[in-house]
Amino acid sequence: MSNLVFLVLGASVLALAFAFFFFKQMMKESEGTDTMKKIALHVRKGAMAYLKQQYKIVGIVFVVLAVIFAVMAVFGLQNSWVPFAFLTGGFFSGLAGFFGMKTATYASARTANAAQKSLDKGLKVAFRSGAVMGLTVVGLALLDISAWYIILNFFVEEADAAHKLIFITTTMLTFGMGASTQALFARVGGGIYTKAADVGADLVGKVEAGIPEDDPRNPATIADNVGDNVGDVAGMGADLYESYAGSILATAALGASAFAGNAEFQEKAVIAPMLIASIGVVLSLIGIFLVKTKEGATMKELLRALGRGVNVSAFLITIATFVILYVMGFENWLGISFSVVSGLVAGIIIGQATEYYTSQSYKPTQKVAESSSTGPATVIISGLGLGMLSTAIPVITVGVAIVMAYLCANGFNLEFSAAALSQGLYGIGIAAVGMLSTLGITLATDAYGPIADNAGGNAEMSGLGEEVRKRTDALDALGNTTAATGKGFAIGSAALTALALLASYVEEIKIALIRIAGESGTAQLTKSVSWTVDKIRSASLIDFMDAYSVNLMNPVVLVGVFVGAMMAFLFCGLTMNAVGRAAQKMVEEVRRQFREIAGIMEGKAEPDYARCVAISTKGAQHEMLLPSILAIAIPIVVGVVLGVAGVMGLLIGGLSCGFVLAVFMANAGGAWDNAKKYIEEGNFGGKGSDNHKATVVGDTVGDPFKDTSGPSLNILIKLMSMVSIVMVGLTVVFHLM
Amino acid sequence: MSNLVFLVLGASVLALAFAFFFFKQMMKESEGTDTMKKIALHVRKGAMAYLKQQYKIVGIVFVVLAVIFAVMAVFGLQNSWVPFAFLTGGFFSGLAGFFGMKTATYASARTANAAQKSLDKGLKVAFRSGAVMGLTVVGLALLDISAWYIILNFFVEEADAAHKLIFITTTMLTFGMGASTQALFARVGGGIYTKAADVGADLVGKVEAGIPEDDPRNPATIADNVGDNVGDVAGMGADLYESYAGSILATAALGASAFAGNAEFQEKAVIAPMLIASIGVVLSLIGIFLVKTKEGATMKELLRALGRGVNVSAFLITIATFVILYVMGFENWLGISFSVVSGLVAGIIIGQATEYYTSQSYKPTQKVAESSSTGPATVIISGLGLGMLSTAIPVITVGVAIVMAYLCANGFNLEFSAAALSQGLYGIGIAAVGMLSTLGITLATDAYGPIADNAGGNAEMSGLGEEVRKRTDALDALGNTTAATGKGFAIGSAALTALALLASYVEEIKIALIRIAGESGTAQLTKSVSWTVDKIRSASLIDFMDAYSVNLMNPVVLVGVFVGAMMAFLFCGLTMNAVGRAAQKMVEEVRRQFREIAGIMEGKAEPDYARCVAISTKGAQHEMLLPSILAIAIPIVVGVVLGVAGVMGLLIGGLSCGFVLAVFMANAGGAWDNAKKYIEEGNFGGKGSDNHKATVVGDTVGDPFKDTSGPSLNILIKLMSMVSIVMVGLTVVFHLM
Repeated sequence: MSNLVFLVLGASVLALAFAFFFFKQMMKESEGTDTMKKIALHVRKGAMAYLKQQYKIVGIVFVVLAVIFAVMAVFGLQNSWVPFAFLTGGFFSGLAGFFGMKTATYASARTANAAQKSLDKGLKVAFRSGAVMGLTVVGLALLDISAWYIILNFFVEEADAAHKLIFITTTMLTFGMGASTQALFARVGGGIYTKAADVGADLVGKVEAGIPEDDPRNPATIADNVGDNVGDVAGMGADLYESYAGSILATAALGASAFAGNAEFQEKAVIAPMLIASIGVVLSLIGIFLVKTKEGATMKELLRALGRGVNVSAFLITIATFVILYVMGFENWLGISFSVVSGLVAGIIIGQATEYYTSQSYKPTQKVAESSSTGPATVIISGLGLGMLSTAIPVITVGVAIVMAYLCANGFNLEFSAAALSQGLYGIGIAAVGMLSTLGITLATDAYGPIADNAGGNAEMSGLGEEVRKRTDALDALGNTTAATGKGFAIGSAALTALALLASYVEEIKIALIRIAGESGTAQLTKSVSWTVDKIRSASLIDFMDAYSVNLMNPVVLVGVFVGAMMAFLFCGLTMNAVGRAAQKMVEEVRRQFREIAGIMEGKAEPDYARCVAISTKGAQHEMLLPSILAIAIPIVVGVVLGVAGVMGLLIGGLSCGFVLAVFMANAGGAWDNAKKYIEEGNFGGKGSDNHKATVVGDTVGDPFKDTSGPSLNILIKLMSMVSIVMVGLTVVFHLM
Repeated sequence: MSNLVFLVLGASVLALAFAFFFFKQMMKESEGTDTMKKIALHVRKGAMAYLKQQYKIVGIVFVVLAVIFAVMAVFGLQNSWVPFAFLTGGFFSGLAGFFGMKTATYASARTANAAQKSLDKGLKVAFRSGAVMGLTVVGLALLDISAWYIILNFFVEEADAAHKLIFITTTMLTFGMGASTQALFARVGGGIYTKAADVGADLVGKVEAGIPEDDPRNPATIADNVGDNVGDVAGMGADLYESYAGSILATAALGASAFAGNAEFQEKAVIAPMLIASIGVVLSLIGIFLVKTKEGATMKELLRALGRGVNVSAFLITIATFVILYVMGFENWLGISFSVVSGLVAGIIIGQATEYYTSQSYKPTQKVAESSSTGPATVIISGLGLGMLSTAIPVITVGVAIVMAYLCANGFNLEFSAAALSQGLYGIGIAAVGMLSTLGITLATDAYGPIADNAGGNAEMSGLGEEVRKRTDALDALGNTTAATGKGFAIGSAALTALALLASYVEEIKIALIRIAGESGTAQLTKSVSWTVDKIRSASLIDFMDAYSVNLMNPVVLVGVFVGAMMAFLFCGLTMNAVGRAAQKMVEEVRRQFREIAGIMEGKAEPDYARCVAISTKGAQHEMLLPSILAIAIPIVVGVVLGVAGVMGLLIGGLSCGFVLAVFMANAGGAWDNAKKYIEEGNFGGKGSDNHKATVVGDTVGDPFKDTSGPSLNILIKLMSMVSIVMVGLTVVFHLM
């Protein structure tokens, strides 16, 4: 085992140490008045209570799955490391969300209090708290990766070093499945929770009763603020842990197989993505320390301060990649580095496009706002239209990035040979790693948004006055802009990682077949094809595709593609309906309280906050199970019914349709949100006008789009791949077609 | 040439003769009072004026494309029949829409007048007029097919009979491209027209001014009624002409190649789909004559009457298929017949699912209506959720049908061999033909809906009173139910036909390569692969897939899949926005007239109908070009940039994502429409309540979903395939990858 892996372990410790340091720093700040403390405590308790509840349910799912894997291992359908790797992946992903949320709930009142002094002070508390989350995610992921790598290297025994490395890296993918499963539950459960509360609070509070956002008279307001934490913070943490770890693991697995014939470079190819991520930790820290402004900075200066941190990190990682790959002695260091660059550039372009389509500074969102003069229906139509149009640039960008990353990594080899393919796929994987390598800082700029949002809620409820609210709103708006870039990286990397996982799937088939062939020395691939172990070992990706008739004209593949495309829609339909149902219950409860609690509107009686929290909790717990379990079950069912060819079709259909659908939903939702803000800024009639009411309808529809269904799709795509990979033993042995 | 083709010609003459007979019968009915005549004339003139305008623009596009094809033919990139076949396909498709619309505009006042006497009389006039459309579409398509088949057989000279037949059938596909192009323009242009008028009329008339639908005081009401004719009638006619002809042509082409090695059966395999369609004409006529009710029939009895006609035809065509294929002497007549059955059964199941998800008699739509108690936002969320969920059954049904049709036709051969593949694909094609074979009657039950709708409009504007309006509403509602089945067949057949076209694409590559190889005797497939003419001739579908690296792991294929999925969204986004923009102009105009024309609301002054008609016309003409031209241009661009592998990916991505998106949009739109109707029937507060207003918003959003973007997707999918097929010469010679 190369000692370079200890550098990775070191980077993880560094990240976690700085996360702890920033956390302690934040905790030193004052939480403000007693009211502020009380509200923060309410929110913190509600959030923690929800998370505990959720972890219980998810825990049961994890235990059931781990038992299934254990049984599979007993029957030789999977190796015996899988249950443990799976559990740690889920545990660490959950932990990343937990720490992030704990920090956020401690930070909100402190940010509000700091914002009383100045905008700059507020930014600093919020941003450093966001950095805790970013560094925790990165640190835990690298810890998990390096620890498992060391453990498996120590325990696994294989005569052949090359196959040992392939075995280790594909086994490690199972902890990716654990992370994805946890992330899906966190995103779906948290997403339903937060949007049920948000929609409920808005529809009755803002539209019917005409009271402002976060008004303490609104019974759903605590639930709304709890929701921001469990959905936007804990959900996002688990989500990005999954993306980050997934891209590194998939690339490592690809590296092990692409360079299997080259003893010198195989382990280097496995370590390279981990090393790039490790250097990314250091560069993220540099970026984080660069974010500071002088007293009395303007909005523009603040934005520049944040942008400086992110851009410097991104620039430095590019240079670092060239250096790392050169120093490691890769023959094609230049090409692979350019693969990373194409990933980074694609992420930036997607981020810019996201900003263009969703920011009220540009025409598209302004047109959605303008369409409000003909009522809510035209707001919805134009928002949906905008979302659909906005898919073009990300798709074309990702398409170009895929081709460029592929060609750069394999020396511009247009021939479709086994070697060109596996090297090219390694390039696609490492492009995704490049995109996410500076996650430490990009996630900080993303996660501080909800913290600022919550700070605003706290300020409003504690009656801190207009000025403070304005400052927290400014921080929130700033966060929306920087978050656009983060979204670009997240969504772009998901597409690339999913492609890499597709190749890992075929690699896992190989391992499963070797395990099955075992003593007899041959394995049955299909009814008419049977291979010896030697043949299996030497077969390329393309050989497997042929043997399993993974051909675009094969109706089994086509049916798989159809089902994959349908899964994306079905999943969104289930989560949309879940939000709709939970929100409806919330609306009825808020209406009931307004009606039945005397003096509530005059601020004389306190609303029953706990009941709204309970409704959101119950709704989320109840509704998150079906879509999440479906995401796990469908790849298994398709595998058993349609076999390998069907699964490959499923993954391609799910990836392509899911990616486009995710961009559509995220951008439509973002545009509706900001069209409403644009009107609230005083355009087209301003707050309280009919136009405003029409855009509130748009924003409400957009809520589950951008915060529940849309972001879950990224995870869905990868989870389906992960499940297929882990369950491949079953598919290979039992299948109807 | 087999003489059986004259049976096809005969069937076409029979269909056209009965269409003429029903038309004459309908014309004998009285058009009612002078007001009724005047209104009908207004609508007729407006519709004809629009259609002429549209044909002019489409004519220019056709001339340009024909010139391009001619130039390609000169350079040997295409054969010289193509421009002519293309033009006739477009011409006949347009003619089908034109005749249908002419009939509908004559029939509306007559239906209203007949409905004054009884429900049954109204049904008869409307349904027989619908039958004119159904029979015209079927008759013109069979005429075009048989005529070209006879002409090409006469003129084409090829030494080898087998290759002659392949050449003829693939050439005939070009007239399918003409039909698809015309259909897309008709659907998109008509769809934008009708929905701009409808949305405009509803938003200002119903919601703001609170006057009923089709009220003569509403300035947009004539435009709305014109829209029903140009969108729902002319658009639908061109659309189904395309589906019907496309399925037969694609299957004939597949038959020619699947049975190329079998001189006895090759032509029979080509003729079989035409014959099944021809027998379908006779059985449709029987069905049409079965539709009659006694005086004073209830709704249920009426529904049973219509159902009887459709079901008897479907049942008889099943039996007829077994007989035809047996008599023709097909070795596997039983299997191929079961392929047809699997298509028919799939169509029926999709139709039932459509009805379940969109009819107010069932829970899903009632739940959408119920969600109106929390406002328009939850109506939109629940409708979108419903639409997304509703994709599951159609996708799984089509998936099962694909596999069944494939396996039945190739004798349950699970091996992926060249012979098994081409026979199986033939089965998939003929399943689509089976689905559409009784189009004569299913289209009649579909097309009479808009006629009844227009009759209602005429009755309202002429002040015929509640009772007549109730009857026409009943007819309209009846039409919605029967139309669900029709939609199932249309959408299911589109998926199957598109798959068949995929195979035809590869077949066309073969022909293009042979043409290019010409004298030298070899052709360059890719940079490293070059084949002799003999090799090209003997190569199977699978050989071509390998030679062009059409492999699911090839990044070029994957990028194609992504772009295909994106195209479906982009196209819908463009058409949605087009409707939004045009509707906004309409709303502003109607508001202006209400404001500026004194006495308009008291019925003392006549509104300026013509101006609204002009706005819809201009909007539709202006907005239909970009999406339609994009649909033609993208496959060409992808072909030139990414080559054959990219195009195959594009078509798969477009097909899978487009199909699911089409089901989603159609069902969400249908559910919103009927949720509104459910409330209008007196549930959840009834007409005029806040709940009603919320569902009107849903209905308005649903309008472009179900009548513009959704139905255009079916055509888009096939048009992209057709363009790829016709343009393959370009792709084969010029491509970057």
